[in-house]
Amino acid sequence: MLKQPIKLLSGAFPIVQWLPKYTIQKAVCDLIAGITVGLTLIPQSIAYAALAGLGPEYGLYSSLCGGFIYTIFGTVKDLNVAPTALISLLTFTYTHDSSFGQPQSAILLCFLSGIIETGFGLLHLGFLVDFVSTPVVAGFTSAGALTIAAAQIKNMLGLNFKAETFVKIMYNVFYHIKETSLWDAALSIICCCSLIMLREMKRFGNPNTDNIWKTSVWFLSVSRNALLVIICAFTAFLLKKHDLTPFSLIKNVPQGLPPIQLPFIISNGTETFNFIDVTSDLGTGIIVVPLVSILSNIAIAKAFADGKVLDASQEMLAVGLCNIFGSFFGSFPINASFSRAAVNNASGARTTFGGIFTGILVMFALTFLTPYFSYIPKATLSSVIICAVIYMVELKLSRLIWRINRIDFFPLLVTLVACLVLSIEIGIVIGIVVDLLLVLYYTSRPKIETEIIKHEKNFQYMKVVLVGTLFYSAAEFTRDKVLKMITSDSKFLVFDCANLRKIDFTAAKCIDALIKDLNEWKPLVVFLRPKTEIDFILRKAITDANCYFIKNDNELDTLFDEKANSGYELTSVCANEAYENDDEKL
Amino acid sequence: MLKQPIKLLSGAFPIVQWLPKYTIQKAVCDLIAGITVGLTLIPQSIAYAALAGLGPEYGLYSSLCGGFIYTIFGTVKDLNVAPTALISLLTFTYTHDSSFGQPQSAILLCFLSGIIETGFGLLHLGFLVDFVSTPVVAGFTSAGALTIAAAQIKNMLGLNFKAETFVKIMYNVFYHIKETSLWDAALSIICCCSLIMLREMKRFGNPNTDNIWKTSVWFLSVSRNALLVIICAFTAFLLKKHDLTPFSLIKNVPQGLPPIQLPFIISNGTETFNFIDVTSDLGTGIIVVPLVSILSNIAIAKAFADGKVLDASQEMLAVGLCNIFGSFFGSFPINASFSRAAVNNASGARTTFGGIFTGILVMFALTFLTPYFSYIPKATLSSVIICAVIYMVELKLSRLIWRINRIDFFPLLVTLVACLVLSIEIGIVIGIVVDLLLVLYYTSRPKIETEIIKHEKNFQYMKVVLVGTLFYSAAEFTRDKVLKMITSDSKFLVFDCANLRKIDFTAAKCIDALIKDLNEWKPLVVFLRPKTEIDFILRKAITDANCYFIKNDNELDTLFDEKANSGYELTSVCANEAYENDDEKL
Repeated sequence: MLKQPIKLLSGAFPIVQWLPKYTIQKAVCDLIAGITVGLTLIPQSIAYAALAGLGPEYGLYSSLCGGFIYTIFGTVKDLNVAPTALISLLTFTYTHDSSFGQPQSAILLCFLSGIIETGFGLLHLGFLVDFVSTPVVAGFTSAGALTIAAAQIKNMLGLNFKAETFVKIMYNVFYHIKETSLWDAALSIICCCSLIMLREMKRFGNPNTDNIWKTSVWFLSVSRNALLVIICAFTAFLLKKHDLTPFSLIKNVPQGLPPIQLPFIISNGTETFNFIDVTSDLGTGIIVVPLVSILSNIAIAKAFADGKVLDASQEMLAVGLCNIFGSFFGSFPINASFSRAAVNNASGARTTFGGIFTGILVMFALTFLTPYFSYIPKATLSSVIICAVIYMVELKLSRLIWRINRIDFFPLLVTLVACLVLSIEIGIVIGIVVDLLLVLYYTSRPKIETEIIKHEKNFQYMKVVLVGTLFYSAAEFTRDKVLKMITSDSKFLVFDCANLRKIDFTAAKCIDALIKDLNEWKPLVVFLRPKTEIDFILRKAITDANCYFIKNDNELDTLFDEKANSGYELTSVCANEAYENDDEKL
Repeated sequence: MLKQPIKLLSGAFPIVQWLPKYTIQKAVCDLIAGITVGLTLIPQSIAYAALAGLGPEYGLYSSLCGGFIYTIFGTVKDLNVAPTALISLLTFTYTHDSSFGQPQSAILLCFLSGIIETGFGLLHLGFLVDFVSTPVVAGFTSAGALTIAAAQIKNMLGLNFKAETFVKIMYNVFYHIKETSLWDAALSIICCCSLIMLREMKRFGNPNTDNIWKTSVWFLSVSRNALLVIICAFTAFLLKKHDLTPFSLIKNVPQGLPPIQLPFIISNGTETFNFIDVTSDLGTGIIVVPLVSILSNIAIAKAFADGKVLDASQEMLAVGLCNIFGSFFGSFPINASFSRAAVNNASGARTTFGGIFTGILVMFALTFLTPYFSYIPKATLSSVIICAVIYMVELKLSRLIWRINRIDFFPLLVTLVACLVLSIEIGIVIGIVVDLLLVLYYTSRPKIETEIIKHEKNFQYMKVVLVGTLFYSAAEFTRDKVLKMITSDSKFLVFDCANLRKIDFTAAKCIDALIKDLNEWKPLVVFLRPKTEIDFILRKAITDANCYFIKNDNELDTLFDEKANSGYELTSVCANEAYENDDEKL
């Protein structure tokens, strides 16, 4: 009796499936993994908040809800929904100029993105991400990483100017290079070197061993961000005790949990703005942010799905709900991150429950640690970001694409250059469009395999192999190709339709026109092994009586014999529907 | 020595090919055909000028150059380039509101369309028209015909209001129906009935016979427009002699050949406008008019190409030059017409030379007949148009599409409705986009044929047949499908790649991911008969050692035997390139 509702429930709430089987042992694993993720997340989220143009507290607010909500609705045990580099960059792009002030517009963007992601999940529109290819994603991700890195170089050198695209930022860095703050620059270099060293140390460590040293090395490497931030903050604190403030530090962070607020009510204290005005102020961000978010989410989820078929709709729903709920607690747009998922996986997470422990750790940080956050040097945070994003530049993948298929490298290059020169959000649109045009080009210019075959009965015929889909865009091309290649001494024109899966009206009529074109030397036209649907369409579309529908090779041989014996005279077995529109147009 | 330059010349000037072989006999045939076409063209062009919102003389001006230029550059003997219903409607749409006055903006549009058509021809961009399917063309043509017919109903009833789209015109017709001018309405009904009767008479006639009666009936039917216009004008002339003017007549037509003018210099007498301003005033018309023109031209040219492969680029060039030259003689955009090509063909045209005779007839009309044109009743011209365009409503074709393939009916319907409700030029764009989305949908959701095969050696394997192109948009779909369908007791997963023509990087990596997904029960993966290019890409993209590349069925059997005997233990023959980007992202 209960099975049906439980099945329904477990569809929408995957937690129903695993919670009844949850054990203490699993909980311990999840606790360890959750805390490890938390140590990665807290410094990351503060840094990404700065990247989004927001105060550090907003990074922590954004890290709060994801864990709890994803535990209930998520399907992939390793995912952690919180700020990520790319989405933070996009948030900055779309909200830093907002006429309604930034924390509020970023929070509204989070809410609206959540609504759209949830909508996509409910409407099963996840297939849309299939239309973004790996090369475009590689180009976009690399460009995003380069843009973020460029912006961080500016912070690391303590420079001060306004620029958004990679090209403009780099130009300005060189233009303002003389204004470099030496202390900040020095700290940055030390931080970066330490982070890269700690990161590389990982290969000597191993979380899944009894060797305490290897486990420690691994843990040290994974929590390098937290470690570095603590050391730098402590150093800054000591220096301040001696009245030295060589580094620029981040702003004071308000203590305590975020106030609950309605994300869709935007006011500047005195007046409340119209919802429609505020929304249109965000422009295409309302579409681009959730689409990029869904895109990277599904890619990450698939990577960690462990061979199970991913329920993409449920994933979109889960991330959408994380954003919607988050926006009530001051979150800017959030998303799953590859690096956190990898940490979680390596730390031995068993279920999504680890998210709750991560969330509790963030709450703890907000309640007790905020007074100490104001000692964190900006350069340290910039180093944390840079050392995270440089690994997002897809050098290896790009080289592989180049080696495997030069044509696929083209959309990558277009996306990369457009993102760097124009802007990250325009670049991805251009990349997708170029990629779709390539698909349209290839579907409209299929390789048509033809073969002139000499039959033992001393005649020859041409065989054309039609495969896959034959649509209007390829129809005229196919007609011209066949017409150019057929020779007048071919007695038969055989279309091998065995692997033709779909044909549309235009293509069918085009084959009809091709048969009419051939009237001069009248080869017999044979459709070999068409599937039922294709057979139906062709029979209806072809008006010329001069053609045969043959089910298998034996029948074809019989036909050849028959025709060779009777001197190729024509009698038809084709069921025709007369269709003579042309004559009436006179 | 001379052969090479002549071959080059005959490419650009097809006249070089046939003129040396031209005979008196051919000239007589062309003369008869040319005059017959002229008798169709003159009343048509006056009527279409009115449709374009221009004075009757512009119709004649537009009919002047096409014949001469097309004789030199055209490749299809039956085509006649002059005003057509659809292009006239589009000309009206784009120029009637022009701030620079109508004859001049229409002439500029003609010039610019010509430039773009010529450019398309020179750049071999004719393949672009492949992306407009028969259903979309049917929807667009039908909507155009209905819109034109609706506009003529307004004229036939002598009503006076401003409206452009079909829906708005029909609404206004009913709203203003009480203002109907009875005499005009009566004349219209008589004219329409006569035209339809004369048209239907054609089936009793025959141009290619010695029976003088049959030839006369045919000629009467074909020159019905000229006949009716003469009778009605004469009637109006007689009535005017008795001071009766019951019908609204067309404006006075200036006598003589058009003055030569530079189409790109636009002035209103006192000031000359900036070329850029005037051009931007025409908006998207500069693209839509030439594209629609190329589209219908190539369709008509193919229909009359008589089985020869059409040189689409040369055709575009020819029509482009007709427009460019025409614009110096006051022509609005012109194009080949199906009805005139059919008349030309049936009248026995042998070469494109008939165009010169048609042109001379138009010159004669301009020089000697213009004084009599002012007696032509407007209702007669409207009847001429209506009786031409009602046959453009593709009822039969639409029914055929509906019967053959419901899915193809969808773009037809979308185009038709969008053209009727929004506007003809927006409608076709919407139709094309919907159609392209359908292509993308089908290429991204291919039918994947899988088969579970029981081998005689007492094991089973799954065969997946990949055909045509496998691109990124179909990659994840294919992966999920295979993953859903494969059973854990399949010892092998065989991809039959014999008919796979193209694969891109994303799809290849997706198959790699699929193989990793299968790690749990480790079936052996076999790529059967991949083509060289596919083989190369797959070998580079697939990192899993657990797969085989097999050239033919015999080798496959050998592999099966080997593996069955050894208890399916794994040794690999796959050349791998290690690619482990994921691990490093931690």
